[in-house]
Amino acid sequence: MLTIKDSVHDHIEVEGVAEALLDTPAVQRLRHVSQLGTVSLVYPSANHTRFEHSLGVYHLANRALDSLNVEGEAGERVRAAALLHDVGHGPFSHNVEGVTHRHTGKYHDDVGELLTRGEVGDVLREHDLDPGTIAGLVGGEGRYGQLVSGELDVDRMDYLVRDAHHTGVPYGTIDHERLVRALTFVDGELVLDEGNVQTAESLLLARALMNPTVYTHHVAQIGKAMLRRASERLLATSPDLDAADLRRMNDHDLLVALRSTPATEATAERLLTRDLYKRAVWTEIDDVPDAVLGADHEAIRAYEAEIASAADVDERRVILDVPEPPTMTESTSRVIVNGEVRRLERQSPLVSALRTASRNQWRLGVYAPAEDVDRVGRAAVDALDLDVDGTLVSHVRGGLHATLDEFG
Amino acid sequence: MLTIKDSVHDHIEVEGVAEALLDTPAVQRLRHVSQLGTVSLVYPSANHTRFEHSLGVYHLANRALDSLNVEGEAGERVRAAALLHDVGHGPFSHNVEGVTHRHTGKYHDDVGELLTRGEVGDVLREHDLDPGTIAGLVGGEGRYGQLVSGELDVDRMDYLVRDAHHTGVPYGTIDHERLVRALTFVDGELVLDEGNVQTAESLLLARALMNPTVYTHHVAQIGKAMLRRASERLLATSPDLDAADLRRMNDHDLLVALRSTPATEATAERLLTRDLYKRAVWTEIDDVPDAVLGADHEAIRAYEAEIASAADVDERRVILDVPEPPTMTESTSRVIVNGEVRRLERQSPLVSALRTASRNQWRLGVYAPAEDVDRVGRAAVDALDLDVDGTLVSHVRGGLHATLDEFG
Amino acid sequence: MLTIKDSVHDHIEVEGVAEALLDTPAVQRLRHVSQLGTVSLVYPSANHTRFEHSLGVYHLANRALDSLNVEGEAGERVRAAALLHDVGHGPFSHNVEGVTHRHTGKYHDDVGELLTRGEVGDVLREHDLDPGTIAGLVGGEGRYGQLVSGELDVDRMDYLVRDAHHTGVPYGTIDHERLVRALTFVDGELVLDEGNVQTAESLLLARALMNPTVYTHHVAQIGKAMLRRASERLLATSPDLDAADLRRMNDHDLLVALRSTPATEATAERLLTRDLYKRAVWTEIDDVPDAVLGADHEAIRAYEAEIASAADVDERRVILDVPEPPTMTESTSRVIVNGEVRRLERQSPLVSALRTASRNQWRLGVYAPAEDVDRVGRAAVDALDLDVDGTLVSHVRGGLHATLDEFG
Amino acid sequence: MLTIKDSVHDHIEVEGVAEALLDTPAVQRLRHVSQLGTVSLVYPSANHTRFEHSLGVYHLANRALDSLNVEGEAGERVRAAALLHDVGHGPFSHNVEGVTHRHTGKYHDDVGELLTRGEVGDVLREHDLDPGTIAGLVGGEGRYGQLVSGELDVDRMDYLVRDAHHTGVPYGTIDHERLVRALTFVDGELVLDEGNVQTAESLLLARALMNPTVYTHHVAQIGKAMLRRASERLLATSPDLDAADLRRMNDHDLLVALRSTPATEATAERLLTRDLYKRAVWTEIDDVPDAVLGADHEAIRAYEAEIASAADVDERRVILDVPEPPTMTESTSRVIVNGEVRRLERQSPLVSALRTASRNQWRLGVYAPAEDVDRVGRAAVDALDLDVDGTLVSHVRGGLHATLDEFG
Repeated sequence: MLTIKDSVHDHIEVEGVAEALLDTPAVQRLRHVSQLGTVSLVYPSANHTRFEHSLGVYHLANRALDSLNVEGEAGERVRAAALLHDVGHGPFSHNVEGVTHRHTGKYHDDVGELLTRGEVGDVLREHDLDPGTIAGLVGGEGRYGQLVSGELDVDRMDYLVRDAHHTGVPYGTIDHERLVRALTFVDGELVLDEGNVQTAESLLLARALMNPTVYTHHVAQIGKAMLRRASERLLATSPDLDAADLRRMNDHDLLVALRSTPATEATAERLLTRDLYKRAVWTEIDDVPDAVLGADHEAIRAYEAEIASAADVDERRVILDVPEPPTMTESTSRVIVNGEVRRLERQSPLVSALRTASRNQWRLGVYAPAEDVDRVGRAAVDALDLDVDGTLVSHVRGGLHATLDEFG
Repeated sequence: MLTIKDSVHDHIEVEGVAEALLDTPAVQRLRHVSQLGTVSLVYPSANHTRFEHSLGVYHLANRALDSLNVEGEAGERVRAAALLHDVGHGPFSHNVEGVTHRHTGKYHDDVGELLTRGEVGDVLREHDLDPGTIAGLVGGEGRYGQLVSGELDVDRMDYLVRDAHHTGVPYGTIDHERLVRALTFVDGELVLDEGNVQTAESLLLARALMNPTVYTHHVAQIGKAMLRRASERLLATSPDLDAADLRRMNDHDLLVALRSTPATEATAERLLTRDLYKRAVWTEIDDVPDAVLGADHEAIRAYEAEIASAADVDERRVILDVPEPPTMTESTSRVIVNGEVRRLERQSPLVSALRTASRNQWRLGVYAPAEDVDRVGRAAVDALDLDVDGTLVSHVRGGLHATLDEFG
Repeated sequence: MLTIKDSVHDHIEVEGVAEALLDTPAVQRLRHVSQLGTVSLVYPSANHTRFEHSLGVYHLANRALDSLNVEGEAGERVRAAALLHDVGHGPFSHNVEGVTHRHTGKYHDDVGELLTRGEVGDVLREHDLDPGTIAGLVGGEGRYGQLVSGELDVDRMDYLVRDAHHTGVPYGTIDHERLVRALTFVDGELVLDEGNVQTAESLLLARALMNPTVYTHHVAQIGKAMLRRASERLLATSPDLDAADLRRMNDHDLLVALRSTPATEATAERLLTRDLYKRAVWTEIDDVPDAVLGADHEAIRAYEAEIASAADVDERRVILDVPEPPTMTESTSRVIVNGEVRRLERQSPLVSALRTASRNQWRLGVYAPAEDVDRVGRAAVDALDLDVDGTLVSHVRGGLHATLDEFG
Repeated sequence: MLTIKDSVHDHIEVEGVAEALLDTPAVQRLRHVSQLGTVSLVYPSANHTRFEHSLGVYHLANRALDSLNVEGEAGERVRAAALLHDVGHGPFSHNVEGVTHRHTGKYHDDVGELLTRGEVGDVLREHDLDPGTIAGLVGGEGRYGQLVSGELDVDRMDYLVRDAHHTGVPYGTIDHERLVRALTFVDGELVLDEGNVQTAESLLLARALMNPTVYTHHVAQIGKAMLRRASERLLATSPDLDAADLRRMNDHDLLVALRSTPATEATAERLLTRDLYKRAVWTEIDDVPDAVLGADHEAIRAYEAEIASAADVDERRVILDVPEPPTMTESTSRVIVNGEVRRLERQSPLVSALRTASRNQWRLGVYAPAEDVDRVGRAAVDALDLDVDGTLVSHVRGGLHATLDEFG
């Protein structure tokens, strides 16, 4: 057994299959993949990695298994899945996922392959664990897969407190000890025990507050959009590089590759020196035609070209960012209320209110270098047929960090 | 200037009128008045006092004044009011307020008198401050009174983080530094600056989560009800003691007085050894007839007598607890949204959801010694004409702390 | 099993004999005995109690037992002893111990009696535990007694972090998780495992820094001396009160008793309003004759009378405070170094340096009301034959909190 | 003015020249230079950067300037120097400094050049600040240079608390607020005010405990030695790369360069997957001949070749690590004691004890791949003429982290 000191959970004890997995290249690579990607452009102390997060998830899984009295091989499987749950992430975590997945197909298949091949597969088999089963748990399959990926998974519990610790934003500071202790199974479903509606709500609220303040802060969004577009251009202009290679990179590899490729060098410099594009348009969902909301990758590229042409700027200087419509996984978490299992959305009036609030915070963005912002903004309103008045950049309802915003 | 070390705000600098006020008996008395009263029966580490809270409120007021560029005498007045805002509290803070106020009249008049007389009045006048004006600020009057008592007051900001620190419940950990920096005045009204809807919501949500978990936890409620009833009995059976005397007591005085008075000795022993009454009835607002909801002090006493008689137990062994209907002060806080001042309840869908949630958590309680719970419960359902089924004690929707509950 | 939320250790699980003991009056009484007594006169947020500390010690004992693989009845005994280790304390913890022990004899006998009689004894016997054995463990006897009371006991680990949390002074923030995991037994002796010299030193250093900053801060010392003298006077003038009664009081009882007794009323008011005596003399150990250093209770009273008479003030207005010579229990803790058990004082050059530093901080104090300080100071130098120059109040080498000092 | 949220100091306000400097490439580059380099191989959550540390130093400098009432241009100069104090660091901070400095000459000249040229120089001149003066402050010159670099500098205060926050090791948690408030000038020297010997000692002790636990943990040492040797090899085998280029790299650049260079590829892989060399020899200073202790760069290379040859392994598989003899800057910090300025080493018995303890922790290491450890160890004892018995790897007195050690 080895003991690792963690800034969030203090001492984490690692043993069994997890100890052996820790030394595999696939897990060690996570030391070089940042947890929050471009969020560190807003919160400079948010430089934590997928590695420490994976240790945290492993730790909380262990606590949950203790509390649920799960022992033996079932426990070992969950522990392995918890430690491995993020090995499929590309560089900068979710930031370039869209790019690699569009090219490589389904994320889940990738994970299955990753867990089967190489040292990870060897270690799992040496410990009599089936890589396919572990990949299933990572994907949330089965009774115990809910602990790894689901509405009440320990992944969420770790990242909320860890991101709070590293950004300095307190909203994510949930009572994870209480959550872990309140977990129980009813008819194979993972639920929170009697008396924990509020506990479930607190998880939902923590994410609802962290979302606009941290995860989708517009400066992080701009950085992410720039990183994605540059990664696509890197793929398109590098004959020797395919999407699978890109996904196996770590943050260092990608940054250096972007900087040493002519087509992406300028964006890389901008990202490295925080000389980011600004918002030319920032507008609410109701102002956006359905055609734009439903635009696929190619259609978005076409819009960008049209805007660039109308504004008479280089195509690379326009980014159209149509975020996914907001979801709220936690809303379907289950709690026992007076002896009966209920979905939180049925039980708590907060769920639909948060759904509305979340929709209110959604914004379509068009980004451009500071000097092109006016021209690009006007061109975009025309090209996208946006229903905006004179103010192209409207404030997010509640989402802007007034002071930090100046930093953007 | 003196510097005081605080567990929440670290170093607090006290100077000017505040430094002089600190040594007055009225302020020093707050060292012996607990901040959360009977909440420490649920959260054993919640033994902080009104004194440290008052220092914290003074500190945050000072930060807010800095941020708002308020200087000179206006600032001194607010600082004085912040430090003094709680001197009117009786022993165990809000716990026995009902008792003393019913007898002494309006709280506000009391504060005015307290600030005028004695050393506090002397110190204020020596610093050319008018006690009446300070009392007005404590009551939330005027432009700067909003900082001391209002939807966005620093009182609330201090107690949320302080109560979180001392109970160990993280929900109160708001971003008070951000709140204080976001305050601004528009047309004489204290509002949060552009981009702070979420900041306002976070304050609202923090209290919404702290309420059932901490402030109105049923064990704290039972303790409070026992303390109130005993205090009333103490007043009724002590010819030399009037309500004003009771309000001037500190926690020690009251506990010892209760223990040394025959009519209250038993309750005092129960409170000191945490041998509390249990819930004979615990039911939702919809199950309670309007007559009971609207019952005044005398009517409640009559109901108790009726229940006791029907259950054939001593009258002192029945407590009917009809809490005030829930309020939500923060819902009317104001935020600038796209250049316009809006009330939060108009802006945020969370407000009405929280109002519903809060109403759902409301409970009418009837408490009795463990051995009488069955008899008293049945008698109460009849006497109060409650619309309950067999389960006299229903779970709060989300309000019960599952594990801590066992402790109750 | 019940789970209690603690501000320091988060969730504490209490079960078995400990759960039954928790509800006894002797343990519940600790809710009303402050952990640091008059230290709250310096650090206003230090209002934590022996109750929460006892829970913390129980919790750390449990962790240590887990780590040491101690199970069954041996574990139950240690858990009982951990929870009960402080039930023998009088009001204000160590502050009035001297008074009660001088009158009642040995502390250890008292504890033995307390654990045998009443509900505590009943609970222990119901769980087949011998009260005498538990009292022995509380006194540090036997293999496992070292966990409860010894150089490496969990008592020390809890109070350092807890006192740091509540005062805001970070020096006590040790790595208690690491300490607990490093404990092991060699030949029946509790030692720290290989590679933990530094861990042992950190414990020693934490206390060395907390001592002058918190525990023996001169303002806390003055308050303590005033409280002791008043308690002695209370005993002397209250025919119905004996030392055993005094020891059974809680903080409330003592404060109210002092306030309602003519001989001690004035001191009680001073303590309650923080209108403390000041230092008339504050001088180093080398300036004090051996006769004074070795003076017993009676001799000290005689010195005080002599000083009062020479200064022409009432005898109650002079307090001579001759603190115990400094000790350093942690210096004899044992660590395994290259396979061999060594005492820390043999291994670490810090031990003797800290001993010297601690001796340098020792001060003899004579305290009097502010207005008598000059007269009393001069009289005391003569009466005690002190070797001081004009400066009667010399600064502790490093011990004074420069800013907080002003508060004194 | 902009406000940045920091995980350690909460909100940091940046204005004036600092705000303009923040956007320069030289400062933004620090986002990609880790603060603790290979320490993250031991403490996985220690991924903080020089950027956030520089903001923290700027913030504490600002607090100190406030406390010292330094205004106007003198303050602006210090603020600029505080923010810029680390721009001269190469990739992985101190880890490869030896390499670049050996080739480029004095660090201080480099900084002077860095601050004069490029955008930093432009910004400074636009704000009427002389780059040479700022470089002087960074080097600790002059009255206010002591705040930036000296025994009581704010650099030290920030890194101790920040490293504690990110490693999870509490020993660095000093009372920085108190330190900053206690600073004062006497005859142009920066000293701690009366009553702060203990405050000075706490700074010294914090570093004394952090040193072996964090900064010189043997696993971090091994990683650092591997990184240095690889960087030297990179320089030697890359005709287009000179030392100045190397120093301007960030962490990403260096890692990718090492991985894509045949001579360093293997070491890069080992560092990226934490497949580190192990200790073949680990021995105390008294066991090492003076010739080895005094060996320069060339001599060390010759020893390595001799050991490799004797052990019959490739030269790249042997690293001889002769750390600098321990220093203790804080020992000369100054404190006012009874009105007189004294150096801490004169005042506190702890200084010489810590010096001894620090010397006891010093170790000479020889590192090799796990499979070569035995052969290399025996060869090294001969080649270096070490006075060791059979145990080639002796335990650091107190320095080994027993459990984490296993991780090494």
